[in-house]
Amino acid sequence: MQSCFTFFATSDFRENNIRVKPDLDALGSLGDVGWYCIGAILFAAGYELPKSVKALPGTVFNKAGVLTSCGASLLWEDGTVATFNCSFEANLTMNITAIGTKGTLQVQDFVIPFKEDSAGFSAGVESCFNDLTTGWKTMASEHVVATDLPQEALMVREFSGLVADIKRNGSKPEQKWPTLSRKTQLVLDAVKTSIERGLEPVEV
Amino acid sequence: MQSCFTFFATSDFRENNIRVKPDLDALGSLGDVGWYCIGAILFAAGYELPKSVKALPGTVFNKAGVLTSCGASLLWEDGTVATFNCSFEANLTMNITAIGTKGTLQVQDFVIPFKEDSAGFSAGVESCFNDLTTGWKTMASEHVVATDLPQEALMVREFSGLVADIKRNGSKPEQKWPTLSRKTQLVLDAVKTSIERGLEPVEV
Repeated sequence: MQSCFTFFATSDFRENNIRVKPDLDALGSLGDVGWYCIGAILFAAGYELPKSVKALPGTVFNKAGVLTSCGASLLWEDGTVATFNCSFEANLTMNITAIGTKGTLQVQDFVIPFKEDSAGFSAGVESCFNDLTTGWKTMASEHVVATDLPQEALMVREFSGLVADIKRNGSKPEQKWPTLSRKTQLVLDAVKTSIERGLEPVEV
Repeated sequence: MQSCFTFFATSDFRENNIRVKPDLDALGSLGDVGWYCIGAILFAAGYELPKSVKALPGTVFNKAGVLTSCGASLLWEDGTVATFNCSFEANLTMNITAIGTKGTLQVQDFVIPFKEDSAGFSAGVESCFNDLTTGWKTMASEHVVATDLPQEALMVREFSGLVADIKRNGSKPEQKWPTLSRKTQLVLDAVKTSIERGLEPVEV
């Protein structure tokens, strides 16, 4: 799996945003855009945690010591590997490429969709070249998932539903969302530790 | 920059191909599909060599000790970073994503094109979200370069032309192609050395 999420921050963002202040959101680009890369990778890995994480060379900090560009490689027990890059200093780009033995999934707008009412992805299945290797025999298919409500409204609906279920039906708090957030945070913290330890591998 | 080139090798390939034999093309997936990833990254970097190369965790060898999956991160003096992954063990996929300060270039079929008579790429320029961050204001544009002759014929024409120029016009051998090949080989050798040294960074 490869993922990236970058955007070119305005000078106002770089000076004043809470994401670049060591006493506010001190995790910088890793805590902001990197969060989504890690989340996407964990989603594609079925939320199995990697066994180790190792930051990539090329980490950049601002003058206050907050991360503005970084990346990491993740390694799972079964040999699955992933890399991601996140930055406040490069043109707005987001993608995830998840390659398995028999298929490839690619999404280009996995955080903020290109259009509010749909989300697209491409899926390649047992992709191969034609007989003379002059082109591809099997092309990836493009899929579009339409939605009546944008993702933000769906999130509020989900949240309200969970609260209502506790209030009205006496249900226990749903464990799914905090578990996914906690796993994302665990990987994120391991990347930060790896950066602090000079890019050494860190067990998760 | 992120690049990958993977394909799922048949059992015949995995048993008999010269690319998996230690006494033939002993560089395995790195020498075969990795070559193109490195070449694409160097192309996007204007053929400036990185200052250092560091292999990624998750290297896989076959029983004969030949690489079947690996990857590396490359770091340039000016802070440019790149990562690539190459494998004989994952669904056929090739892509390069090159992100600069103001633009993003993406190619999905940079080695063997989807169709013999054209090559496509997408270009995002100063990409940004809309005002409410519910979608993208500027979308990447899709470009298709048509060609009358496939790339293999163009390569033979270029080669024949260079030979003819020496034979008929007494020209000196063209330095461009051997220089590009040599630079690709230098990076490839550095990745191999990094793998052999337990993923240590290697100066190029």
